Amino acid sequence: MEFEAFLLSLGTSAFIFLVLMFLFTWLSRRPGNVSIYYPNRILKGMDPWEGSSLTRNPFTWIREAFTSSEQDVVKLSGVDTAVYFVFLSTVLRIFALSSLLILPILLPLAATDNSIKNTRNEADTTSKGTISQLDNLSMANITRKSSRLWGFLGAVYWISLVTYFMLWKAYKHVSTLRAQALMSADVIPEQFAILVRDIPSPPNGQTQKEFIDSFFRDIYPETFYLSLVITENSKVNKIWKGLEGYKKKLARAEAIFAATSTRPTNKTGLLGLVGEKLDSIEYYTDLINESMAKLETEQKKVLAEKQQTAAIVFFTDRVTAALAAQSLHSQMVDTWTVTEAPEPRQIIWENLKIKFFTRLIRQYLIYFIVAVTILFYMIPIAFVSAITTLDNLQKAIPFIKPVAKITFIRTVLESYLPQIALIIFLAMLPKFLMFLSKSEGIPSRSHAVRASSGKYFYFSVLNVFIGVTLAGSLFDNLKALQQKPNSIVTVLATSLPKNATFFLTYVALKFFVGYGLELSRIKPLIIFHLKKKYLCKTEAEVKEAWYPGDLSYATRVPSDMLILTITFCYSVIAPLILVFGVIYFGLGWLILRNQALKVYVPSYESYGRMWPHIHTRILAALLLFQVVMFGYLGVKLFVWATFLVPLIVTSLIFGFVCRRKFYSGFQHTALEVACRKLKQSPDLEEIFKSFIPHSLSTHKPEDHLFKGAMSRYQDYAAISAA
Amino acid sequence: MEFEAFLLSLGTSAFIFLVLMFLFTWLSRRPGNVSIYYPNRILKGMDPWEGSSLTRNPFTWIREAFTSSEQDVVKLSGVDTAVYFVFLSTVLRIFALSSLLILPILLPLAATDNSIKNTRNEADTTSKGTISQLDNLSMANITRKSSRLWGFLGAVYWISLVTYFMLWKAYKHVSTLRAQALMSADVIPEQFAILVRDIPSPPNGQTQKEFIDSFFRDIYPETFYLSLVITENSKVNKIWKGLEGYKKKLARAEAIFAATSTRPTNKTGLLGLVGEKLDSIEYYTDLINESMAKLETEQKKVLAEKQQTAAIVFFTDRVTAALAAQSLHSQMVDTWTVTEAPEPRQIIWENLKIKFFTRLIRQYLIYFIVAVTILFYMIPIAFVSAITTLDNLQKAIPFIKPVAKITFIRTVLESYLPQIALIIFLAMLPKFLMFLSKSEGIPSRSHAVRASSGKYFYFSVLNVFIGVTLAGSLFDNLKALQQKPNSIVTVLATSLPKNATFFLTYVALKFFVGYGLELSRIKPLIIFHLKKKYLCKTEAEVKEAWYPGDLSYATRVPSDMLILTITFCYSVIAPLILVFGVIYFGLGWLILRNQALKVYVPSYESYGRMWPHIHTRILAALLLFQVVMFGYLGVKLFVWATFLVPLIVTSLIFGFVCRRKFYSGFQHTALEVACRKLKQSPDLEEIFKSFIPHSLSTHKPEDHLFKGAMSRYQDYAAISAA
Repeated sequence: MEFEAFLLSLGTSAFIFLVLMFLFTWLSRRPGNVSIYYPNRILKGMDPWEGSSLTRNPFTWIREAFTSSEQDVVKLSGVDTAVYFVFLSTVLRIFALSSLLILPILLPLAATDNSIKNTRNEADTTSKGTISQLDNLSMANITRKSSRLWGFLGAVYWISLVTYFMLWKAYKHVSTLRAQALMSADVIPEQFAILVRDIPSPPNGQTQKEFIDSFFRDIYPETFYLSLVITENSKVNKIWKGLEGYKKKLARAEAIFAATSTRPTNKTGLLGLVGEKLDSIEYYTDLINESMAKLETEQKKVLAEKQQTAAIVFFTDRVTAALAAQSLHSQMVDTWTVTEAPEPRQIIWENLKIKFFTRLIRQYLIYFIVAVTILFYMIPIAFVSAITTLDNLQKAIPFIKPVAKITFIRTVLESYLPQIALIIFLAMLPKFLMFLSKSEGIPSRSHAVRASSGKYFYFSVLNVFIGVTLAGSLFDNLKALQQKPNSIVTVLATSLPKNATFFLTYVALKFFVGYGLELSRIKPLIIFHLKKKYLCKTEAEVKEAWYPGDLSYATRVPSDMLILTITFCYSVIAPLILVFGVIYFGLGWLILRNQALKVYVPSYESYGRMWPHIHTRILAALLLFQVVMFGYLGVKLFVWATFLVPLIVTSLIFGFVCRRKFYSGFQHTALEVACRKLKQSPDLEEIFKSFIPHSLSTHKPEDHLFKGAMSRYQDYAAISAA
Repeated sequence: MEFEAFLLSLGTSAFIFLVLMFLFTWLSRRPGNVSIYYPNRILKGMDPWEGSSLTRNPFTWIREAFTSSEQDVVKLSGVDTAVYFVFLSTVLRIFALSSLLILPILLPLAATDNSIKNTRNEADTTSKGTISQLDNLSMANITRKSSRLWGFLGAVYWISLVTYFMLWKAYKHVSTLRAQALMSADVIPEQFAILVRDIPSPPNGQTQKEFIDSFFRDIYPETFYLSLVITENSKVNKIWKGLEGYKKKLARAEAIFAATSTRPTNKTGLLGLVGEKLDSIEYYTDLINESMAKLETEQKKVLAEKQQTAAIVFFTDRVTAALAAQSLHSQMVDTWTVTEAPEPRQIIWENLKIKFFTRLIRQYLIYFIVAVTILFYMIPIAFVSAITTLDNLQKAIPFIKPVAKITFIRTVLESYLPQIALIIFLAMLPKFLMFLSKSEGIPSRSHAVRASSGKYFYFSVLNVFIGVTLAGSLFDNLKALQQKPNSIVTVLATSLPKNATFFLTYVALKFFVGYGLELSRIKPLIIFHLKKKYLCKTEAEVKEAWYPGDLSYATRVPSDMLILTITFCYSVIAPLILVFGVIYFGLGWLILRNQALKVYVPSYESYGRMWPHIHTRILAALLLFQVVMFGYLGVKLFVWATFLVPLIVTSLIFGFVCRRKFYSGFQHTALEVACRKLKQSPDLEEIFKSFIPHSLSTHKPEDHLFKGAMSRYQDYAAISAA
């Protein structure tokens, strides 16, 4: 790819970004779109705009994002979101502070050398085949063994030190953030409960529930409150879901009737297309009554007969719950295992019954599957990367040829094709990884998100970054690797400079087009308006159409991490990338701040438990960077490259120290945190009820009286099941 | 070494054993020796002999050992000793059960083949240079690629399966043993306390003690009892030790005066040899009074000014203490770190103040030092092993030559020299390793013993076993290793058979002479009688002279482990060693049972916390055996050797599963164990007092009143120190 193509690609991206920004400014001011651009504020019962929509300055959102405090974010979007912003700002600071010293020193150092002109050594250029202006600003332009390499070595040190410093500060900050949230004087239901798994079979004459109660009452005679035995709910859930569906359809039929004054009808056969024609309102009312009866029977059956080997145990105070969640209850570690209870809304109910060693086996099996997936995805990625160069496409699909001759289209295709292929490819993966993570037997959604985002990170670094880098000269590299299997670092280091332009374009595409689409919300907007016009009949259906969902960390964090890894690894080889990194994380911070405050609604709260994972992965990226630089300085025949070894060791020690100092505070609730006084004594009945799944609690959500009876009923049913 | 030398060495060992047994039978019946052969029973206030000493059958002790139950051992010598016997009997069972199948199958398989006669391949013989009858019974006599090797492969599987089965049973048993002991209805002081380290500096205006008390009172408002702040005691300890010394000397002077009616005198100068001559009784009385005053001043000063950043915190019930010991107290993991409190008698007081990261650094530093020690001890051991062959000695010390020509002496020297050199060499090490382990900052003696015995194990396996094996043909091996650095397993496997006779002799020496000396207690007996006759004047001094000490696991367990490793590794190559292994662990069980019941007095109780370490090391030895067999079957060009790979993986999985299932139960006190009811409500005042060090509690141990005041005083002093 030539320099012009790079500039053009940048220009196109910037142009798309400007168009999207304009669309956002225009669309977000129209009252009809308010539920797309301000759903979080609406759901929180706030005024979407503080002022009038017409007199608003189009850049108000920027001011609002900048003036919002961390506490605003916590209040409107939870601790997890605030932690995500700590991540964005930390990385932004790392790159900004790094460039402050690196750009003014390394760019002149590189520009005034002339290795490329002199040697015309292909292995040293940053573009494939041809030489571009970008190369003159990169390490490729430095002569081998040159003492200028000291500057680049120093830059690695500078970036590393800045990273350690910022990470340390951030970890401390997030730790405080988490502690403050957990200290909350408000009642957080899950702080009064623990999750108990691997409960052994009760002795003869005792029900599961009696057994659990007597076990915990022996240990906590004064603070044990109640236990909620986990049940096998698949059937009752199905009935309940059916019921909810019928209710919606009934509401819809009634809305149509109210609007058109003709009673709607529907057919009972396949997809409502064939079969008898019936009055919808009557039909669904009948179905609802039928389901309600079924639900009640099944509910009784579930509570009496389908008790599993897990339970949620409630205590009368937070300290006991925090103590209990951290302590060994049984001499045999694979029975009565305890953990902190997850939030009710994020419990993965069907995983709770999975046994200790089954969970372990599943976990390792899935690690193995992921490893295999990572390994074998590399092959198609390499092919995609090879095929999507235009020359290869022309050979494969001849009719493209005339189109490709138009210079403009040609350059656009040349600059975007590989990146687009890559992005599509990666979009297919997260669901698969999430499915795998849930299969591990993880009890909560936030934990599954962490597990899946970890897998996605290693996947994207290994496949996208290393894969693309090596694939550029796949066959040469394979040959080299066969001869010297230990030289993977050297091969990677030599291949890196050739792909600098590719990754510069990739980052630019991500921030211009990616964040442009993010802010303008074109896709949700169009879908919402289509649904509203043609499908939605009831208020509930309209709300469902605009409901924004959450920030979806499972894909967002790893994708940021990939940009971070790329920026780290090129920060010294092609320092210009630091500018792109700063823009990516700066723009990201700004735009997502707006989205967090106004758009997305968090679907769970894990009080920043994501942070240690983010921290470890930033360090992993730094380590990769240091190793790659060690290799590349070696390629440049710079003997002092060995000076990087202590830095690599420092990174490992830094990671170890951070883990020892901070990690347990994220795994457990520290007692000094749990012992803070509450505003008022907790309503334990309410806490208990919040953990009962919808399908078991009641079929009339308004009927509080009945709900109370249910929880009592459950006790009764469990005891009488003996 | 020739076969005759081996037989002679066995014979000599057996003869020494018989002599020692006879001495034991004779000496142990004499009433004057009762405090050497029955000290544990005397100290427990029991009758040393149940019947009369004269009518006693000389083999009664064997019957008594066999009929004693595990509960007897627990009662007389504690859980740790019982666990040690579980270890001995488990290994005994492994070897006995293994030989049952292996000896009748492998010995004929080996004896009827004739690889040695046919090939005269030196690398395949079990003795160095010459061929002996022993070789015919070993794997060395099996022809390469022979299908008989299937039998040997099967034997590896058999031994491994037997080991897994026995280890699993033993771990379960020990786990129950530990739980039962911890469930005890008697008050165990340390079950009511936790050890808190890394306490941050108190805020202004608070003393360390106030700060600690308020921190724990916030978290445990109802169950917190008191805290005991750790103090810097080196000076007060010194004064107290001086005082105790003077008291002993005064008692001694008084005893002399009572016996001889002349007032004893002593000189004040160097070693009591020079200087002024004084009346001893007056002199020591003066010194005692002086020290008492000094002690009291220093005690006040210590309590007021020398408070450290650690404390022992007491609770009013066991469950809270067990919960607290397992839970994270501070959001920052390196402050307020908690562990279960060790027994008062085994606390290493001066280690408690060491800070979190200092402990970590010390730990890794010491691992490094131990690794270096292991590596560099190998060199002198190799030399010892090379020099102590008789031929080399003759060259080095020519005047040995005439003596060495006498056949008898020659054979004795030939068979014992290397072993004796080895034993002396290893005797120098334990103190050094114990010093290193204590320097890690470990808070209790039992933990230090575990740490040091672990180091000793890896040391002895790596240096003695592998070292001696490889040193036999050091230079050949070094050459081989230089060419193929990955071939360490193969080199080890080829060298093993050559050393079979050496290790057979080593094991025999250990059980005949080692256990003979153990049972007959010749050395303590002689020392006791000498001391009693020439040195001891007071009753206390006599008791000190016969006080037996404990089983000293720090050296005993690793030395058993070395025998275990040797037996494992040769069990298939030279199956005869299984017989020796069975005798070693059988005889060991019998003789140590007698010693545990009658002689040794445990100096601490860790409730079997040693077991997981023993377990892991037995598995490590098994793994080494499997790897070595994989190598040796490879040397025999047996392609099916790969069938051992699944076995090696199984060992790793077995270890992992055991660790997950059982280990936490040894690390912590499970709550189902801690929640058992006590016989009576605990005397918390007494529990608190038991943790006050002697030097701080009082200078008159009988004065209970003063003791009570002291603990109150401590509260007072700490508070008034603000």
